[in-house]
Amino acid sequence: MEKAKDPDRGNILVHTGEGKGKTTSAIGQIIRAVGHGMKAQLITFFKGNEQRFERGTFNVLRELDVPVKNFAVEHPDFGRTSEEEAEGECYDALQYLGDFFESEGEDYDLLVLDEINIALRTGYIDEDDFLDLLDVKPYGLEVVCTGRGAPKGLIEKADLVSRIENVKHFYDRGVVMRAGYEY
Amino acid sequence: MEKAKDPDRGNILVHTGEGKGKTTSAIGQIIRAVGHGMKAQLITFFKGNEQRFERGTFNVLRELDVPVKNFAVEHPDFGRTSEEEAEGECYDALQYLGDFFESEGEDYDLLVLDEINIALRTGYIDEDDFLDLLDVKPYGLEVVCTGRGAPKGLIEKADLVSRIENVKHFYDRGVVMRAGYEY
Repeated sequence: MEKAKDPDRGNILVHTGEGKGKTTSAIGQIIRAVGHGMKAQLITFFKGNEQRFERGTFNVLRELDVPVKNFAVEHPDFGRTSEEEAEGECYDALQYLGDFFESEGEDYDLLVLDEINIALRTGYIDEDDFLDLLDVKPYGLEVVCTGRGAPKGLIEKADLVSRIENVKHFYDRGVVMRAGYEY
Repeated sequence: MEKAKDPDRGNILVHTGEGKGKTTSAIGQIIRAVGHGMKAQLITFFKGNEQRFERGTFNVLRELDVPVKNFAVEHPDFGRTSEEEAEGECYDALQYLGDFFESEGEDYDLLVLDEINIALRTGYIDEDDFLDLLDVKPYGLEVVCTGRGAPKGLIEKADLVSRIENVKHFYDRGVVMRAGYEY
């Protein structure tokens, strides 16, 4: 018997588009939730290498007792890992997610799956498997999926989809990633 | 004598558009900066009333020793304050900003002016005055301006402009603002 959706709880959100701000916005959502005494967790894909990406953010989340799990820390496109390895780690992530939903997920209010859209787009995570998993997520758990190129099935399933586009970008002027600003 | 712009420092960023995520993204930027040992400050417009807006976020920023200044905490559209009062408080904000730039601003890496685009759009802050002020900001201070309807002059001056649009929004289904999620 299907429960009628309570729009005030457990929505699925997607942040997509080519613009800057998808991850930072999800981090801001975590901060907001934590500030209200809620429980949040961050799971990242392709940016767990703390020497390069998001080390600053991870530092603060650790201080705030927000668990952070990093899967597939290297993206094969950067040449440091193989497609098979990335696929294997994404499979592990899906397993972890299933376990999380069944066990402690009930205690959480917010789960951010950072850059999962990339894993879905590249096929490292099967879209149907992921959508099926979302069907059994804890009822009140809000899930945020970030990353450019969110697949159509996820957009259809989501309750809220935001697209960020760059109207103007200083990367066009050759600026590279800056510690503390871009990561 | 004009100094050549160093693209790695002190950029002006704008988050605009009708979509969700402008403020949360700026908060995420603060978290990232703080996590790298940088100094950040948040100045808000029209959402300082801690009983209603962003209380959760303010709690965490306080814990992280990020100063938060709230100006024009009530927007006249909500009927709790007058246009004159809002305009007066926005004038105070501009004075504060000028003092900040001249004094401690040098010590900061990031300043978020949350919803200042609203103050500019409504004319509570004169756009030319604000743009002139940005010309004398500390060289290395990155400034993020959020809010829908960013004025053209600011967009022209900015180094990076992101627009967030809602592809799909559960407000359309009648969901109201939820503590911990929307504020």
